[in-house]
Amino acid sequence: MSSALRVAVIGAGYWGPNLARNFHNSADWELAAICDLDAGRAEALARRFTGTAAVSELSAVLEDPDIDAVAIATPARTHHAIATAALTAGKHVLVEKPLADSGLHGRSMAEMAERCGLVLMADHTYCYTPAVMKIRELIEAGELGDILFIDSVRINLGLIQPDVDVLWDLAPHDLSIIDFILPGGLRPLSVSAQGADPLGAGKACIGYLTLPLANGAVAHVHVNWLSPTKIRTMIIGGSKRTLVWDDLNPQQRVSVYDRGVDLQTQRVGGVDRRAAMVSYRLGDTWSPALVEREPLDAMAAEFAASIREGRAPRTDAGSGLRVLEVLEAASRSLAEAAAPPRGPEDPAARALVGELA
Amino acid sequence: MSSALRVAVIGAGYWGPNLARNFHNSADWELAAICDLDAGRAEALARRFTGTAAVSELSAVLEDPDIDAVAIATPARTHHAIATAALTAGKHVLVEKPLADSGLHGRSMAEMAERCGLVLMADHTYCYTPAVMKIRELIEAGELGDILFIDSVRINLGLIQPDVDVLWDLAPHDLSIIDFILPGGLRPLSVSAQGADPLGAGKACIGYLTLPLANGAVAHVHVNWLSPTKIRTMIIGGSKRTLVWDDLNPQQRVSVYDRGVDLQTQRVGGVDRRAAMVSYRLGDTWSPALVEREPLDAMAAEFAASIREGRAPRTDAGSGLRVLEVLEAASRSLAEAAAPPRGPEDPAARALVGELA
Amino acid sequence: MSSALRVAVIGAGYWGPNLARNFHNSADWELAAICDLDAGRAEALARRFTGTAAVSELSAVLEDPDIDAVAIATPARTHHAIATAALTAGKHVLVEKPLADSGLHGRSMAEMAERCGLVLMADHTYCYTPAVMKIRELIEAGELGDILFIDSVRINLGLIQPDVDVLWDLAPHDLSIIDFILPGGLRPLSVSAQGADPLGAGKACIGYLTLPLANGAVAHVHVNWLSPTKIRTMIIGGSKRTLVWDDLNPQQRVSVYDRGVDLQTQRVGGVDRRAAMVSYRLGDTWSPALVEREPLDAMAAEFAASIREGRAPRTDAGSGLRVLEVLEAASRSLAEAAAPPRGPEDPAARALVGELA
Amino acid sequence: MSSALRVAVIGAGYWGPNLARNFHNSADWELAAICDLDAGRAEALARRFTGTAAVSELSAVLEDPDIDAVAIATPARTHHAIATAALTAGKHVLVEKPLADSGLHGRSMAEMAERCGLVLMADHTYCYTPAVMKIRELIEAGELGDILFIDSVRINLGLIQPDVDVLWDLAPHDLSIIDFILPGGLRPLSVSAQGADPLGAGKACIGYLTLPLANGAVAHVHVNWLSPTKIRTMIIGGSKRTLVWDDLNPQQRVSVYDRGVDLQTQRVGGVDRRAAMVSYRLGDTWSPALVEREPLDAMAAEFAASIREGRAPRTDAGSGLRVLEVLEAASRSLAEAAAPPRGPEDPAARALVGELA
Repeated sequence: MSSALRVAVIGAGYWGPNLARNFHNSADWELAAICDLDAGRAEALARRFTGTAAVSELSAVLEDPDIDAVAIATPARTHHAIATAALTAGKHVLVEKPLADSGLHGRSMAEMAERCGLVLMADHTYCYTPAVMKIRELIEAGELGDILFIDSVRINLGLIQPDVDVLWDLAPHDLSIIDFILPGGLRPLSVSAQGADPLGAGKACIGYLTLPLANGAVAHVHVNWLSPTKIRTMIIGGSKRTLVWDDLNPQQRVSVYDRGVDLQTQRVGGVDRRAAMVSYRLGDTWSPALVEREPLDAMAAEFAASIREGRAPRTDAGSGLRVLEVLEAASRSLAEAAAPPRGPEDPAARALVGELA
Repeated sequence: MSSALRVAVIGAGYWGPNLARNFHNSADWELAAICDLDAGRAEALARRFTGTAAVSELSAVLEDPDIDAVAIATPARTHHAIATAALTAGKHVLVEKPLADSGLHGRSMAEMAERCGLVLMADHTYCYTPAVMKIRELIEAGELGDILFIDSVRINLGLIQPDVDVLWDLAPHDLSIIDFILPGGLRPLSVSAQGADPLGAGKACIGYLTLPLANGAVAHVHVNWLSPTKIRTMIIGGSKRTLVWDDLNPQQRVSVYDRGVDLQTQRVGGVDRRAAMVSYRLGDTWSPALVEREPLDAMAAEFAASIREGRAPRTDAGSGLRVLEVLEAASRSLAEAAAPPRGPEDPAARALVGELA
Repeated sequence: MSSALRVAVIGAGYWGPNLARNFHNSADWELAAICDLDAGRAEALARRFTGTAAVSELSAVLEDPDIDAVAIATPARTHHAIATAALTAGKHVLVEKPLADSGLHGRSMAEMAERCGLVLMADHTYCYTPAVMKIRELIEAGELGDILFIDSVRINLGLIQPDVDVLWDLAPHDLSIIDFILPGGLRPLSVSAQGADPLGAGKACIGYLTLPLANGAVAHVHVNWLSPTKIRTMIIGGSKRTLVWDDLNPQQRVSVYDRGVDLQTQRVGGVDRRAAMVSYRLGDTWSPALVEREPLDAMAAEFAASIREGRAPRTDAGSGLRVLEVLEAASRSLAEAAAPPRGPEDPAARALVGELA
Repeated sequence: MSSALRVAVIGAGYWGPNLARNFHNSADWELAAICDLDAGRAEALARRFTGTAAVSELSAVLEDPDIDAVAIATPARTHHAIATAALTAGKHVLVEKPLADSGLHGRSMAEMAERCGLVLMADHTYCYTPAVMKIRELIEAGELGDILFIDSVRINLGLIQPDVDVLWDLAPHDLSIIDFILPGGLRPLSVSAQGADPLGAGKACIGYLTLPLANGAVAHVHVNWLSPTKIRTMIIGGSKRTLVWDDLNPQQRVSVYDRGVDLQTQRVGGVDRRAAMVSYRLGDTWSPALVEREPLDAMAAEFAASIREGRAPRTDAGSGLRVLEVLEAASRSLAEAAAPPRGPEDPAARALVGELA
């Protein structure tokens, strides 16, 4: 292997230490520096590794010609400025989810990376878990047939975030996973969002997203900060088989059910009739063994490979943008629903669906 | 006890036998007759009991002065005509869910019962399960505090019905339960429905309902005929405690979690701020013992009691109407969303998956 | 098919009605009579079927030349006398588990059936469940490799039986299943039993059975009347794969794990060493679809087939005897362990917990 | 608080780093040194902390007058020599489980600690988990009533250890927990062990322990290295309530069932009869909230407190000895069962309990 690439982690808060540890342990990477405005925090993190500098000025990282890439783990509202500066300085960039705080900012980052010929990668960590990689592989191989529906639930007693609602906090996980496993990425025909704020927290603490897909399929996401039980389940219904991913069942995370409904078309009096001829398959269930690997380790490897091979990473800026656009459409849908006065016949409901631009 | 009331069961198909058996076993009732247009079917069912007549003409039942009540277990489109005839003949009426095939029909039935001073009861069977009766009791006693959200999931590989979509087939269960347990009944501010028909069955096989409630609360229902795994779960989040009902876990159907999020209002610079002051309760979980009783037996007893006491039954015509109105609003919501011509993606839809030529 | 065989069910208590219903529904059988000393009970059961006589005298059944077989569902202590009379009268015999109340009685019944050329079948109902039939089929096909261990747990809050301990009440299920699935039947090298009677009920309410098998394998059974949670699980470890049967998980009763430990023998300094070379397989899990069929229906079919084909049934007298012999050995093992006078701790035992004076 | 105590961790292999990290993080302790014969390993571990020395000679630790205590995390066969030297040098001693490789060694260590007036503590880590501390507290408060039975299962695909069998490897966990929660500690009336080595690994890979307790109660332990599914469950049946601890269910580890069997004594003809009068309680289930705390942190605190207060720690040498004695008795029980040479017909089996006819 060629010599290791050198990376700086920007932001030593909640997520930065995880990135730092995985870059440090990766044969592909050398962890050159930790950068945080809070010098003490940068130092405390850098001290855990040998040969890693602590800096409190972003410019110190960007001006260092030996640094190949930066990994940004700062609040979303700062992503655009930092990534732009880094790309301008010729660094490859990895950005924690969501890619940016708006589609506008995200698109500007993606265009700049394109123009500079640099890698801009979204840190959609879940996509590098063994379960999600296996799901993508199965769908790609046609094991499920055509995707008919995806139902994702991610609920738990959760920290009410000061700056974002539950959709922006949790749904990026579901959306980035759906984008990753669907052959053409996540391209909903429209976005309809429902939210509730029963505690008066000033933002939705419960959120539902409905995303009609091509060919009559649908994806639905339920995220919730107020549930006393933790559920993280995704059901992916296909025309051939259906897959259930239960992320909280370490003994059987992924199950593939060879069950389903078959419709046969029948011409009756010159008209196609389908529903009349339903048959059910009740076949075996199968649960693939998953190779244990820390997802951030796989992501670090993919970041390095995409840089070396001059290609887009698996979770590229495009995937980050598609997630962002759904989130923005969801916010518009929520705002429209809330806008008109709620009359008894609720005309608001009619304006509801948040059509994607 | 006064002497038993006499009932005739109309319809000897899928549900009629269950009603017949429970009326037969009830001390409150004498099962006088089984009525079905198919005389053979009526006879086969009546033969299981002693002293029960089999008739194939509704008039034979309605003209019998010794019959106090009829229980209607025929297709929904026939409910209005049969119930109207029965009420006109002075019989009390129990109707299988849904109350009628339209709100118009339902309201006409309710008004006639009112006018005649007769009991019109909706057979919302789930409301008479020990679990739902306990949930109602706990909410009534204030154990959960104010209801913040209800999330109901009822999915399984299911028979695609010839005449109704998945919302009309399955959601009456969820809606009648929610109507039963909410102190003022189910009175959503609006109804938003999403459906999907990825198999091209001609009707929604997957359905989502979002029902904003007063005070920022929300109820959401997910029904699905295409899921390989069976889930029947309702989460009821309250300001004091949260309840989870898992109907498929006979060892612990109902769990009450003394967990949740508390927000404190704080005045900062003349402005109320809440989210900043969040605290979490992580208390005990408690699962009440449930007395085993067949729900239809409890329902038969309630039907008799309401007749004898001249009062509305627990699941009265009003509850049937509220369920019907949500279903109708859901159908309107689906129709509106589907209204615009789909354009270029339609032909694609025809090439669908699952097509078994 | 040749004309149906005619059977009489002896005993109309707890189990008899289940046998009667299944014989009645079987195309192989005609349910000729119900026999019970309590004439009213016999009549009540016979009335549910058309063409079934009710009799209170066993001789009426045995002297009827048109009756081919009897199914005995009376208390175990009566099995020997009734079966002997029936065989003498030339009837084929099915006996509810356990085959008899002692090995001596069981052997005498088996010998008489042999001598008379009649079928004597043990009603080991569990062996005819789809799960157990699939397990037997998988083991027979070599899917699990050699059987290394079987661990069976059958615990629940249970009725304390007046006449038998928990081993005689519940373990016949486990033992008959193990006998059915092991290629050569259940032939333990020894039987070691442990029991406990912590409530002072006068018999073991908790029981453990350890059954060393050939080649170092072992079977272990845990039965318990005092457990607040219901568990019915059997783990069958094989040299190639391991199977887990969870009878209370209708969605996935049988799971086959392609996981295990492989030992390689290595010659080190002229000595075989094995443990040093361990490797682990962590392969897929697979859960076969099971065809739904009521086990008693399959059993009735097997009883008819064995009579018609003049062959031993799948659960023949030999299997009933092997189960009986393990139960008898278990009772001896319990008695030996309890033999020495308990001395000073006995008075303590009387002061026990649970004593409600 | 008085100034921190100073501790050296002996052994930097598998368990030492966990001890080191917890002592380092504890306000009660200063992590003075890491000692390992392998100097490189000692250094690698010491480097993770500030102010912690790395030494490769035990004497360097024992001769340091500023060191108050040592924590021994070396193989069991070395515990006696190291602990004896440490006690002689006036150090308090914590020993990883099991306390020693024999009861003889364990007793000698306990006597020396007693003589020297020093603390000798067994590192029974599980006893310091929130679940086990809660169980002990509930039993102590009489919530379960008298203990009737304990059934412990600890099975998983496990590393076949080179030097010990599965009983010595895994059962110390179960035994130390049982010792901790039973009011008078674990004092079985006898010890019966069954083992199996179906792979020919040269030692038991599957083990069962039956421990009759006073008053007819019983404890049973199942440990297994060959199970494809991981189970860690303990059922503790009491005369008032029964507790189930499922260590793999983080959402509900401890459940208390208010269910059970009540026997009433009835005098019939001058004789006490009990079983005839059985009644069942089917009350609520309750699951206490457990405070999250790393068990080794609680253990480090208890070690410090016992030293400062000059008292025995909760898991003192006596508890370590009781566990050792059961393990030794179990090995004797296994050896007796296996004693005679295993011929083809296995005469050994005949010496066993429960001889088959």
